[in-house]
Amino acid sequence: MVIILNETAPEIEVQELEQFLSAYNVQIKPTVGEHTVIWGLIGDTSKIDLDTLLTYPCVNDVKRIQEPFKAANRKFHPEPTTVKIAEGIEIGGGHFQVIAGPCSVETEEQITEVARDVQAAGARLLRGGAFKPRTSPYAFQGLRAEGLELLLEAKQATGMPVVTEIMSAAHLPLFKDVDVIQVGARNMQNFELLKELGKQDKPILLKRGLANTIEEWLMSAEYIMSEGNQNIILCERGIRTFETATRNTLDLSAITVLKEKTHLPVIVDPSHATGVRRYVESMALAAVAAGADGLIIEVHNNPQKALCDGAQSLTPGQFENTMKKVEKLRNFMISEIF
Amino acid sequence: MVIILNETAPEIEVQELEQFLSAYNVQIKPTVGEHTVIWGLIGDTSKIDLDTLLTYPCVNDVKRIQEPFKAANRKFHPEPTTVKIAEGIEIGGGHFQVIAGPCSVETEEQITEVARDVQAAGARLLRGGAFKPRTSPYAFQGLRAEGLELLLEAKQATGMPVVTEIMSAAHLPLFKDVDVIQVGARNMQNFELLKELGKQDKPILLKRGLANTIEEWLMSAEYIMSEGNQNIILCERGIRTFETATRNTLDLSAITVLKEKTHLPVIVDPSHATGVRRYVESMALAAVAAGADGLIIEVHNNPQKALCDGAQSLTPGQFENTMKKVEKLRNFMISEIF
Amino acid sequence: MVIILNETAPEIEVQELEQFLSAYNVQIKPTVGEHTVIWGLIGDTSKIDLDTLLTYPCVNDVKRIQEPFKAANRKFHPEPTTVKIAEGIEIGGGHFQVIAGPCSVETEEQITEVARDVQAAGARLLRGGAFKPRTSPYAFQGLRAEGLELLLEAKQATGMPVVTEIMSAAHLPLFKDVDVIQVGARNMQNFELLKELGKQDKPILLKRGLANTIEEWLMSAEYIMSEGNQNIILCERGIRTFETATRNTLDLSAITVLKEKTHLPVIVDPSHATGVRRYVESMALAAVAAGADGLIIEVHNNPQKALCDGAQSLTPGQFENTMKKVEKLRNFMISEIF
Amino acid sequence: MVIILNETAPEIEVQELEQFLSAYNVQIKPTVGEHTVIWGLIGDTSKIDLDTLLTYPCVNDVKRIQEPFKAANRKFHPEPTTVKIAEGIEIGGGHFQVIAGPCSVETEEQITEVARDVQAAGARLLRGGAFKPRTSPYAFQGLRAEGLELLLEAKQATGMPVVTEIMSAAHLPLFKDVDVIQVGARNMQNFELLKELGKQDKPILLKRGLANTIEEWLMSAEYIMSEGNQNIILCERGIRTFETATRNTLDLSAITVLKEKTHLPVIVDPSHATGVRRYVESMALAAVAAGADGLIIEVHNNPQKALCDGAQSLTPGQFENTMKKVEKLRNFMISEIF
Repeated sequence: MVIILNETAPEIEVQELEQFLSAYNVQIKPTVGEHTVIWGLIGDTSKIDLDTLLTYPCVNDVKRIQEPFKAANRKFHPEPTTVKIAEGIEIGGGHFQVIAGPCSVETEEQITEVARDVQAAGARLLRGGAFKPRTSPYAFQGLRAEGLELLLEAKQATGMPVVTEIMSAAHLPLFKDVDVIQVGARNMQNFELLKELGKQDKPILLKRGLANTIEEWLMSAEYIMSEGNQNIILCERGIRTFETATRNTLDLSAITVLKEKTHLPVIVDPSHATGVRRYVESMALAAVAAGADGLIIEVHNNPQKALCDGAQSLTPGQFENTMKKVEKLRNFMISEIF
Repeated sequence: MVIILNETAPEIEVQELEQFLSAYNVQIKPTVGEHTVIWGLIGDTSKIDLDTLLTYPCVNDVKRIQEPFKAANRKFHPEPTTVKIAEGIEIGGGHFQVIAGPCSVETEEQITEVARDVQAAGARLLRGGAFKPRTSPYAFQGLRAEGLELLLEAKQATGMPVVTEIMSAAHLPLFKDVDVIQVGARNMQNFELLKELGKQDKPILLKRGLANTIEEWLMSAEYIMSEGNQNIILCERGIRTFETATRNTLDLSAITVLKEKTHLPVIVDPSHATGVRRYVESMALAAVAAGADGLIIEVHNNPQKALCDGAQSLTPGQFENTMKKVEKLRNFMISEIF
Repeated sequence: MVIILNETAPEIEVQELEQFLSAYNVQIKPTVGEHTVIWGLIGDTSKIDLDTLLTYPCVNDVKRIQEPFKAANRKFHPEPTTVKIAEGIEIGGGHFQVIAGPCSVETEEQITEVARDVQAAGARLLRGGAFKPRTSPYAFQGLRAEGLELLLEAKQATGMPVVTEIMSAAHLPLFKDVDVIQVGARNMQNFELLKELGKQDKPILLKRGLANTIEEWLMSAEYIMSEGNQNIILCERGIRTFETATRNTLDLSAITVLKEKTHLPVIVDPSHATGVRRYVESMALAAVAAGADGLIIEVHNNPQKALCDGAQSLTPGQFENTMKKVEKLRNFMISEIF
Repeated sequence: MVIILNETAPEIEVQELEQFLSAYNVQIKPTVGEHTVIWGLIGDTSKIDLDTLLTYPCVNDVKRIQEPFKAANRKFHPEPTTVKIAEGIEIGGGHFQVIAGPCSVETEEQITEVARDVQAAGARLLRGGAFKPRTSPYAFQGLRAEGLELLLEAKQATGMPVVTEIMSAAHLPLFKDVDVIQVGARNMQNFELLKELGKQDKPILLKRGLANTIEEWLMSAEYIMSEGNQNIILCERGIRTFETATRNTLDLSAITVLKEKTHLPVIVDPSHATGVRRYVESMALAAVAAGADGLIIEVHNNPQKALCDGAQSLTPGQFENTMKKVEKLRNFMISEIF
């Protein structure tokens, strides 16, 4: 940690700061410049609060040198993490998977039919929302417990592991047979929920918040990991900007940044990122080229009757077409580029 | 609701759309232009999903005419709502209050001392965090249940009603004697929590999310109100932008927009918005001039020892000074301007 | 155009609006709902100012149905535009090009050496800044006229057409032998400059502004096109968001949106978008997969001695390596995917 | 300047960096920690490019300690600057002024009538656009040279100094009798224009760019000041965010930040910031309470006939009403608060 002192700080204020730091067992190494004094702190500074330091009137600025995430940090864990979801179905460490299914589970026929369709097209995991976070309390909120049951029936019918979103730790008992628990963008910093998920032994798919930095996202992964659960899949789904042609702005450079900073796998959700069916395929392909470990794509057998997010759902036919391209491109990237 | 059709839509596609709409008991009134056909829908369109309409290939665009919030809407409730917190302590409808206290409850002495100080300076409500949402799992997480107890002791000692943040509906039993329950920015769209708070009979202080629009914020209020609880205080606390000189960008125009759109009271948190103690007072005064119904300000008896957010906390002396100006300005605004 | 009237508008106010509209030779087709009246306007509404309509007290909202760009609009020009830069060097309409070179021209040796290197690696156009827009007046401002001369010497030495940025229409005489004139992000809405460039007969490379929407970007292209010059290459170079891990956030979905809305070619600048050399290659590949018509990449023979933007420049060796992958991927996309 | 080295940097890479720095006549003071080495650089580091340093593989991060603006910096010029516009009309250093007038000059009657109205209401400077930056080339572009003439006639008729926007340095001869030259938001980083304005002896009103930080804004002021012209008035006019209820998000905390960082006066434009007439007054009052040195407000004698931005223009009657409140509040702030 580096502390930059004010050039005009009186001796008494500097002594107060020294006294404060003396409690942390760190060594102060000063560098005296023409206009400033810089202190380098040697030792474990992870417990020192930046905000508190800034309250000292003699402090001009503080800079933390070490990254604040540890368990998720690639520096201390150079090998990429492979998250095992089921026998033969892994994500990360060279394993690429496509998760597909409808925004929300609606009927047994719907979810089972879509499951069979996306499975036939090559998806290995089934998604389907039972608990739906909706901006409006008057919008369809998902079938909730009943939706989970229908999703699990589709799992039985097809053998596909399922991914579905949790909105409250109180619902955990209902998720017993769910294979991957999803944390949605709006709950990325629901820290109490993250802590509870850290105590589970299931993989967690952690979506990036609407307006969260990559570092904050990794700190949320850290919340889960620090409670024990190391099986985390990060999912980029677009961030909020001033642009209105797409629902969000897909940040594909996040893949590259994350590959450098963390060992956790990263997948991309082009459906929520763009919000427009016609833009999904090209963003799926771009994500593959950028090195994503997987995709999560919305597919509905009848988008015009979908109870939510129909505008961004592919039909099974469109999905099949996109899947062929995704697979070809993935194979090409592995054999020729990566 | 207005639907704009594609100029080249074949008749068969238009018929499909008509069939879909026939289920909603609305009347279609077409306007035929040179290049477009516009449909005005007459009747209750609140159940029709915009996204679904957009999936019809013949649909170019859809525009909802009515605002999606009802309970919070000033159109249907022109009188401003007054939220009663305790005997003689109200917010909204002409009643202005300052809420003050430390970011987090640390010790009995600390919270009680700060409580007496801010009370003496004119604050009528005491704030203090027991459950603290922190970006890092390694940062101080608040004293939690013990912190609530200390806060309630300070309430007893001073008679001040208390405001404190909830992070999970599972903690509700601990909040029995809390006067106002705060929902933090990161939980503004924690819909399961909002629904539970809608069943409580306590006032809710609902902070704006880091990157949420005013309309989304009102929809979150609507979640609480639609479950029964009408006592909501909105709190503007800054939004996330590219600017780095302040922690967030305080959006004071939100006050004016909200006064037009809703009957709910609106207060401002200049401490979290700026993140810098030196900027708090001027933003507090600007908020008063803009017509805010109150302020929430961080005060710590020893900011340099604060366990969180010390850099933005005022000392009791600074707070007293700011309070004098706030009161003078508020009185002037009432007598001369509003 | 659709005008939504206030439900409570008195007759006299509505008559004023009718009178205003009578000057525009449009027909009003009203749709009367339960709570609102909607007017569809039939005829040429392009001259009617939205802002003016909003000043009428009886007007609740206005929605333009037609897109405001015409010359750039794919609807009226379905075939993609091919911009011809030199004999055998075209961009768009199936032609893909890589533009490469240093951020700024520094010496004859530097620019000629880099030109030969990037040419050998497969780039067909040479970039090099002579006039440099820098945030600080104390930073290196480019070699200006002398830099242009050195760039043109490199053109002669290698036969590569050159791309370089203009910062003022007053400098146009110096750009006589430049092949493509670049408008930088900060000048995307320098409308006087755009108008002058519209009178030139050279291709214009128009970068997206730091915080501009895709529609605003197309309107800036429209400024150039409406003066006569139709040879415009759009360049996505990242937009400003709250994220700090990259210099800007590369918006690759803009490629897909633009391919739908306009016939103009679109290229991507992964160097300025990320600001980090290590992230350039993966974003270049993602851009190719998303369907970009080209790339512009910074290359410096000695990044550590670069007078600007060294941190994002590739070495010639790195560029050669990236080019091989870009070419392989582009060929694969053409033969297997597009 | 502080350089943080990579912990694993080989000696040879560190020597290269030392060699690079040896050219700058700075002294290196190393601090050796457990995992990192930090170098404090002593001496004049203003010529060292941060980007170049980051290209050295041994460099992990670099932090500049001194602020990059000098002429505008309050540290080196503690007294606030007073910009003198005409005899008895000053802005800054305790002098507060309201600038008012229409978005664009339309006819002699219009501009002269509005001038008389706003003068009668207490405005001391007249604004009126002759050169209008419009997103669309098909929108009204201002009366240009003819508009300037009409504006100067209104100046003669009323004696009010005039403020009007310049869009190209080529137009400077037309601005001979203009009192204050405005640089619009879109030209804040039109550096060639700024340099030319630095050679003029007229006050410059420099608006903040749509998506520019406060530091970038001060660097643009620095461009003007470094060429000689010290008479700059900064104008906050809202920044671009995801919020859509207002045209932009007015950043009033910028006033407080600027008062700390610079000696230049700061005024606020609530008309462009909100884009909605009904929100102008409350933001004008908030700006006064926050300590602004002035306001610039759009007033039109017939907003419904305005050729641009009518929706945000006050009528003369509304302006008179707002002015009374602004004056009362300003007097109160001076006598009781500041």
